[in-house]
Amino acid sequence: MAKITAPMVKKLREMTNLAMMECKAALVEAEGDLDKAVEVLRKKGAIKSAKRADREAAEGSIQSYVHSNGKIGVILEMRCETDFVAKNNDFQRCARDICMHIAWADPAAVDRHGLPNEMIEKEKAIYKDQVKDKPEHIINKILEGKLKDFFERVCLVDQKFVKDQNKTVGDVITEQAHKMGENIYVNRFARFEVGG
Amino acid sequence: MAKITAPMVKKLREMTNLAMMECKAALVEAEGDLDKAVEVLRKKGAIKSAKRADREAAEGSIQSYVHSNGKIGVILEMRCETDFVAKNNDFQRCARDICMHIAWADPAAVDRHGLPNEMIEKEKAIYKDQVKDKPEHIINKILEGKLKDFFERVCLVDQKFVKDQNKTVGDVITEQAHKMGENIYVNRFARFEVGG
Repeated sequence: MAKITAPMVKKLREMTNLAMMECKAALVEAEGDLDKAVEVLRKKGAIKSAKRADREAAEGSIQSYVHSNGKIGVILEMRCETDFVAKNNDFQRCARDICMHIAWADPAAVDRHGLPNEMIEKEKAIYKDQVKDKPEHIINKILEGKLKDFFERVCLVDQKFVKDQNKTVGDVITEQAHKMGENIYVNRFARFEVGG
Repeated sequence: MAKITAPMVKKLREMTNLAMMECKAALVEAEGDLDKAVEVLRKKGAIKSAKRADREAAEGSIQSYVHSNGKIGVILEMRCETDFVAKNNDFQRCARDICMHIAWADPAAVDRHGLPNEMIEKEKAIYKDQVKDKPEHIINKILEGKLKDFFERVCLVDQKFVKDQNKTVGDVITEQAHKMGENIYVNRFARFEVGG
């Protein structure tokens, strides 16, 4: 089996804007060939256009937000493809809005692939215990629903956006990507709370 | 042996402004008794005054700094004892200065106790290899010196302060503590660089 290295996964993530585990799985299937991995993802419908996969989101902007009480602060790296977009006011405002959202909503990770495995397993164990008396044929459906709810509570991209509860933060990022005509994503964030 | 929990260590850190490992060791020696642990540290000369140990640094301020190019940013939690000091302009300016320093100097941790063990062991192995042909009786002295240099490069409190190279960041924090008359320390920081 071909060895899949972290830089290869990183590169594919930058090319596709997809989550780490998806990229890793595609690279395993493509035996480490980056172009083939892109094809694998296209065939699966995970990425829609060829163009998008050809372009790297290697540029970006760091934004921060400190709540007026000085007790909560957030820093965030938002990626895009060109420095032109990185310096765009609208792009930077979007990044700052997401910082403010993070200060408020306190997500545990950017997406479900960023959550520690133990955290997910612990949740699953709790849900399994909760549904153990239900009829067998609906258990999986209930578990799936509970896990989905969990992700919506703790994953940044799945959370309802603080400024518009009809959208998720993921929707806001996708809108921004369309507006800018570039591949855009939140690469990482940190949220500090005094004594937290 | 008494179980030493993370909250106990945290509490003692807040009381003494000392590093985690020092506090843990003192708690082990004091068999988990917080007051005894303070005594242990006093006897060792690790903390100087009784007063200082009686006061918690449970308040503080979050500050951030983003470099004008938008490519490097820092967030920092600076602790103090009262909200009065947390809201003090001078205290907040000091925290912002340290943010700026971190953006520039890219430290790996607040102090040596925050460095990953593997990182220190790796450095030690390199130095040992470098000095292996030196006379036995000076090897330890050279190793000590090299390790000290290493800490001065990678530990925030040991680094020369960006705005005044005659002081370390640790000196700046101590000065601020004297000025405010409170126990003050950097609890944690995060430094983001686009693509970093």
